[in-house]
Amino acid sequence: MTRVKIVEVGPRDGLQNEKQQLDTASKLELIRRLAASGLTTIEAGAFVSPKWVPQMADSLQVLQALDLSGPVSYPVLVPNDKGMEQALAAGVREIAVFGAASESFSQKNINASIADSLARFDSVLATARREHIRVRGYVSCVVDCPYEGAIAPAKVAEVAARLLDMGCYEISLGDTIGSATPNRVLDMLAAVSKLVPIDKLAGHFHDTYGMAISNIHASYQAGVRTFDSSVAGLGGCPYARGASGNVATEDVVYLMNGLGVDCGIALPRLVETAWFVSGLLGRAPASRVAQAMGRHH
Amino acid sequence: MTRVKIVEVGPRDGLQNEKQQLDTASKLELIRRLAASGLTTIEAGAFVSPKWVPQMADSLQVLQALDLSGPVSYPVLVPNDKGMEQALAAGVREIAVFGAASESFSQKNINASIADSLARFDSVLATARREHIRVRGYVSCVVDCPYEGAIAPAKVAEVAARLLDMGCYEISLGDTIGSATPNRVLDMLAAVSKLVPIDKLAGHFHDTYGMAISNIHASYQAGVRTFDSSVAGLGGCPYARGASGNVATEDVVYLMNGLGVDCGIALPRLVETAWFVSGLLGRAPASRVAQAMGRHH
Repeated sequence: MTRVKIVEVGPRDGLQNEKQQLDTASKLELIRRLAASGLTTIEAGAFVSPKWVPQMADSLQVLQALDLSGPVSYPVLVPNDKGMEQALAAGVREIAVFGAASESFSQKNINASIADSLARFDSVLATARREHIRVRGYVSCVVDCPYEGAIAPAKVAEVAARLLDMGCYEISLGDTIGSATPNRVLDMLAAVSKLVPIDKLAGHFHDTYGMAISNIHASYQAGVRTFDSSVAGLGGCPYARGASGNVATEDVVYLMNGLGVDCGIALPRLVETAWFVSGLLGRAPASRVAQAMGRHH
Repeated sequence: MTRVKIVEVGPRDGLQNEKQQLDTASKLELIRRLAASGLTTIEAGAFVSPKWVPQMADSLQVLQALDLSGPVSYPVLVPNDKGMEQALAAGVREIAVFGAASESFSQKNINASIADSLARFDSVLATARREHIRVRGYVSCVVDCPYEGAIAPAKVAEVAARLLDMGCYEISLGDTIGSATPNRVLDMLAAVSKLVPIDKLAGHFHDTYGMAISNIHASYQAGVRTFDSSVAGLGGCPYARGASGNVATEDVVYLMNGLGVDCGIALPRLVETAWFVSGLLGRAPASRVAQAMGRHH
C-alpha cells in the first residue's frame, strides 16, 4: 500500500496566523491530541521575535513539555542564529528554515534578496550539521507571488536546489496565496524535480481559492508523497477576505483514504481534534470534512 | 481553446435546498445577473408539488417572466405528466427528469424501484419528443448512496444508458452526498462511458467533503466537458452538518480559467452575483473563490 506522510503545521504555521492566541496548556493539549490521532511530524513552535509573532512567544515552554526523543518529530521554525541557539537550548531535533521563490516577496517580507536570505542560513545549517539536527526547507510563492504574479518554475527549482545543497533533507513547496491550479503545480513540479529528487519534495498548499485538494491530488499523481496541512484549516478563516489558510489536515486525510493511500491517521480522532481546537478559538472548523462528519465520534 | 459548459443549478437545485425562500422578483434578478455573467444554461424552476417544495411554488411566474426563446436555456425539473402539463403551459423549451443509481435511495425517496421510477417518465418523454422539448436526465448517487454505501459503476451505466435511450440529450451524473474521491469518479466514468458517449455526460458534484473541484478536474481530464454547479454554493451551508451543497460555480470557473479552459463566464460578475444572492439569504457565500475575491469588483 502506498504511504503518504502528513506534516502537521497547525500548532505553528496555523496558530501563528490566528488573531486569537492559545495559552501554553491548550497548545500542548492540541499537540497531544494530534499525536494521538497518528500524526508523526507536528510543527510545534518558532524561535522568532515575540514582538513580531506574539503567538509563538511560549515556544520554549511548549518544546520543553514535549518528549523530543520519542517517535514524533516536532520541528521548530528557526530564522537565524539567535533562534538556533534557543532551539539548541530547548533540545529540538528538527528545525525548519525558509526562503522565497519570488524576489519581490523576499524583499518586501524580510528586506533581503533571495540569495542573501539563504546565505543568512549558512551558519544555522552548519550548526545543525554539527549537532545532528534535521533541517526542513520551506520555499514560498512557488506558483504565484502577491506582488509580481506568476513565478518561473525554473526559479523555484533553483531555490529548492540551493536549500537541498545547504543540507535540507526535504523541501516543502508552498503555494502561499493559494492561487495555483493543478496544471500550474505540475509545471512547477516538473522543473523542480529535475534538480531535486521528488521523494525529497513536499507540497504545502493553501486553500484560499478552494484548489488545494485538487493540487494535492495532482502532486500525488506526479509522485509527491509528503504534504503539509493544518488541522481544522488553522491559520486562515475562510470567511475573511484574503485569508490564505493552509489546507485542512482532515480534508487531505479524507482524500488519501479515498485513494486507498495510507497516512497512518485515524480520521475520526483528527476530526474531533479539529472541533476541539476550533472550540478554543470560538468558531467552527474551516474544513468541509470536519463539518460533514460532525463534532462527535 | 477547449470549452466547458457550465449548467447553473442555483435558482432551482440550490434555492430548493435553502431554508429561506426568495420572492419571485429576487429570483428573477438572480437569474438576470447569472445570464449577464455569461451563463447560457440556468435551471430556473421545478413543476413539483408546492406542498413538498414550497421554494419552487412560483416557478410558473418565474418562467413566464423569462425570455424562453432567447439564447439562454432555462431547464425546469419535471417529475411527472402533471408537471409536464405545467411546463408546456409555461412554454419551456427544456426540462429535466431524474433517476437514482441506488435502489435504496429510489425506494426511500420516491417509493419506487429505479425501473418503475424511470418508466413513469415514458409519457413525459413522449410528450417532450412531440413538442420538441429537450430533456436532460439526472442520475443521483453515482458513487455512494447514503443508505447502501458504494454503488457499482455498472449500475450507474445501466441507468444512464436507459435515460439516453428514453431520449435525454445529456445525462448529469450526481455525487449526491459529495463523498466521492477522484479515483472512484474515474472508475464510474469508465463504466458509464462504455454505454453513453462521454460528450453526452455531465458531472454534478457536491462539495460536502471538499472533494468537488478535484473530482471535476479528474472528470475533465477523462473528457467530460459539462459541469453542473450552483452560484455561491447555494443549496448547502458548509457550516451545517451533512449539508451536501452543490459545488460553487465560481470555484469551477476559477479552476477552468486556471486550466486555460474557456467557460464564457466573467468571473468578477459571477462573484458579485454570489455576494448578491448570499446577501439576500443573510449570509456569506459558501465559496472559497467568492471569499478570496471579495465583495466588490
